[in-house]
Amino acid sequence: MTKDAGSPAPRQDDSPPSAVIISTGDELVAGLTVNTNAAWLSRRLAEVGIRVQSHITIGDDQAALTRAITDAIGRCQLLLITGGLGPTEDDLTRPALAEALGEPLVEDAAAWAWLEAFFQRLNRPMTANNRRQAQRPASARCVENTCGTAPGLVVCRETTSPSLPIKSSEAQGSGAKVTNPTERPAATDIFVMPGVPREMEAMFERSFLPRLKSRGCGRIRRVWQINTFGAGESWIGRQIQPLMRRGANPSVGTTVHEGVVSVRIYAIGTVEEVEAGLRRTRQAVLEKLGDLVFAENDFTLEQAVAALLKERGHTVATAESCTGGLLAQLLTNIPGSSAYFLRGWVTYSNAAKEEDLQVDPATIARHGAVSEPVAQAMADGARRRASADFGVGITGIAGPDGGTTEKPVGLVYIGLAGPSGVAVRRCQFAGDRHGIRLRAAQMALTLLRLNLLGRDPNAVLP
Amino acid sequence: MTKDAGSPAPRQDDSPPSAVIISTGDELVAGLTVNTNAAWLSRRLAEVGIRVQSHITIGDDQAALTRAITDAIGRCQLLLITGGLGPTEDDLTRPALAEALGEPLVEDAAAWAWLEAFFQRLNRPMTANNRRQAQRPASARCVENTCGTAPGLVVCRETTSPSLPIKSSEAQGSGAKVTNPTERPAATDIFVMPGVPREMEAMFERSFLPRLKSRGCGRIRRVWQINTFGAGESWIGRQIQPLMRRGANPSVGTTVHEGVVSVRIYAIGTVEEVEAGLRRTRQAVLEKLGDLVFAENDFTLEQAVAALLKERGHTVATAESCTGGLLAQLLTNIPGSSAYFLRGWVTYSNAAKEEDLQVDPATIARHGAVSEPVAQAMADGARRRASADFGVGITGIAGPDGGTTEKPVGLVYIGLAGPSGVAVRRCQFAGDRHGIRLRAAQMALTLLRLNLLGRDPNAVLP
Repeated sequence: MTKDAGSPAPRQDDSPPSAVIISTGDELVAGLTVNTNAAWLSRRLAEVGIRVQSHITIGDDQAALTRAITDAIGRCQLLLITGGLGPTEDDLTRPALAEALGEPLVEDAAAWAWLEAFFQRLNRPMTANNRRQAQRPASARCVENTCGTAPGLVVCRETTSPSLPIKSSEAQGSGAKVTNPTERPAATDIFVMPGVPREMEAMFERSFLPRLKSRGCGRIRRVWQINTFGAGESWIGRQIQPLMRRGANPSVGTTVHEGVVSVRIYAIGTVEEVEAGLRRTRQAVLEKLGDLVFAENDFTLEQAVAALLKERGHTVATAESCTGGLLAQLLTNIPGSSAYFLRGWVTYSNAAKEEDLQVDPATIARHGAVSEPVAQAMADGARRRASADFGVGITGIAGPDGGTTEKPVGLVYIGLAGPSGVAVRRCQFAGDRHGIRLRAAQMALTLLRLNLLGRDPNAVLP
Repeated sequence: MTKDAGSPAPRQDDSPPSAVIISTGDELVAGLTVNTNAAWLSRRLAEVGIRVQSHITIGDDQAALTRAITDAIGRCQLLLITGGLGPTEDDLTRPALAEALGEPLVEDAAAWAWLEAFFQRLNRPMTANNRRQAQRPASARCVENTCGTAPGLVVCRETTSPSLPIKSSEAQGSGAKVTNPTERPAATDIFVMPGVPREMEAMFERSFLPRLKSRGCGRIRRVWQINTFGAGESWIGRQIQPLMRRGANPSVGTTVHEGVVSVRIYAIGTVEEVEAGLRRTRQAVLEKLGDLVFAENDFTLEQAVAALLKERGHTVATAESCTGGLLAQLLTNIPGSSAYFLRGWVTYSNAAKEEDLQVDPATIARHGAVSEPVAQAMADGARRRASADFGVGITGIAGPDGGTTEKPVGLVYIGLAGPSGVAVRRCQFAGDRHGIRLRAAQMALTLLRLNLLGRDPNAVLP
């Protein structure tokens, strides 16, 4: 097996090389799974100056898949195929590709040995089905999968050869564009990846992208994302309105995902133009949004907080009621989190709050479990019990039941205890149980982040 | 304008009518917007017995769009097109459709009047561009848009007419399936909708779906999903191999999402046939997979465990090291979780394990924190400290660092303490930090579920 994507196809002119993406799976054409792979691949290709012509999605139907592959070969320089590499009967990409190439399937010795070792290592029995996964069309090479069992495939098909199928429909009437044979690429590189997004992404980044970087034309497109938490999308949009003018390059837009409002900057041009445009616009956005910005691009809020904690050598402990361990989970999802995360308590019951965090029963009796004094005592208790620099306490009503007129669903108190004392923020979140829990954990991370930066949350958050 | 989807195309046989969905827009092929329209339409079509062959996504390129439309006509009974109906230069669906049909674009008087009234009502100036939106191919009809300015289009194209383009590639070699001309549908109904999901959905529901309901000659498709955890996809595939025979109805396939292996049963036929087929095949799958099945359709593993705990009135407490609160978070993500979830500890440090869970320091010193005796002591400590019916203890190495030859990344011990004692399972998971943590939490839920059902995990898990 190889992690090498094959030699680049020669380029005929200066137009951007074009790609077709084929995704396969009954779950996709049945609408049971939304095809996110094609969008992800398109973004990555744009970054290296490769233009995507079309996405094609086909069910588990070998004839249709063969037809789509045959149709794409010769019409693009790059054909990416995802899915259909699993070990079962309905995984048809290997035979369809072999059929389209007019080649037999052969067993790849290296892939077979790798699969055998994989199952041995996991101490799991290897089935005859798995053996299928070591097959490849005769002229293809297998590509290592670092996250799963299905090896990828890479093959280059020259399209000037007269033995290739010529689709005479293109030369006939019918209103379709008549393709000039000289416009055809000299060769189509075919990359085949698993359909599981994580496996596909890892294989593309590791084995295919490095080779594509030298392929693109001079004009690239790049996106830069600036991530904020704590203000609504329309508030953010108002701050950066002059930058959002239609038709500008770079252009600027906002998007919301799981409570995080991101500003996206899109720039098109030569590498130099794109870099200068992004630098300029990024600076303008950062100036407008200030400390609401926690990170850029794929960086998450928990990564930003983890980096600050590590940098300063500070530690944290968490005491959670309505978020039920979500805050601890976010903080420990970062590799090396044991450097800053000491201990967490999920104290659903009053008894747990009293025993584990030394919250005074009288405080709970007087103010209720969802109250400012209890959030304060939880934060303080977590900090002291764990001997941590910071303690976070969260208590609230995640719903859908349990709300009252005085304490409605979405009411959450977040306490933060640190070297300089304890502060509590009262929040009222909208949304369902999942959304309320997530926003509570995100606000706790934001309060911790602002404290680590020495900022007053009341001055930063609108 | 009409809200009527046109007269149904005559059906030639009893096979389910098939559809192709074309989506158009540069933002889609650039990957900046994920195409959710195609999945949404596919699900709605399946429910009325229409099978989707393929999804095709094309940029703002009239020649490519014309080619895709021409290619689809005659290959399906129903062609759905979304997007490209806006008022700007890059909205090309109307001219591309006219070109594919070999017809001129004409202005629709009713659509024009409607657009004029629309802008008058909003007191907004109408531009020359907006006038484009009243155009239609000569034989098409405009369809009202209740949520925006772009009217839809409907047109029926008979495909038996000799004047239609015949794609001779299908009759040639090239490895592609040779289509028998008599298999072609007598006519293709073409429905064109806006790309904005809200507008597209409203137009489809109001103007197109009612007509499609009478189309399926009573033949519908329905999907049933059976969810398992604890065995690999290929192992599951082997157990149900006879059911996965290609071409069977119901047909059976497997899919994996975040560690959960699901068996999907797709049935096509009359309502009665589908119900009988699903009942029969579901029963056969359940018999083969037994207690590996935790739930069906959209039900999650944590919901299944929560339902069992509530039903039996049992309570649980969790002690987590490498999963860092993930198990508690999953258990408390269910509304009403306070009925069964008492307390959770995230004990990253040895001190936390000793103080909070009364794990004997000598046990940690002798066996290490990642060991069977420590998992056992954590589970036991959580159960006793919380006075819960069940205690779960998880200790392992989530990586990416911290692994050794003896204790590699992915090694996790899961202890379950219950009324009948404590059992520990040693697991070796593959994948990245996220995957290892998730599988550890899912395995803990599975062990708890099997215990609640009175099953021996060693007898159930392969």
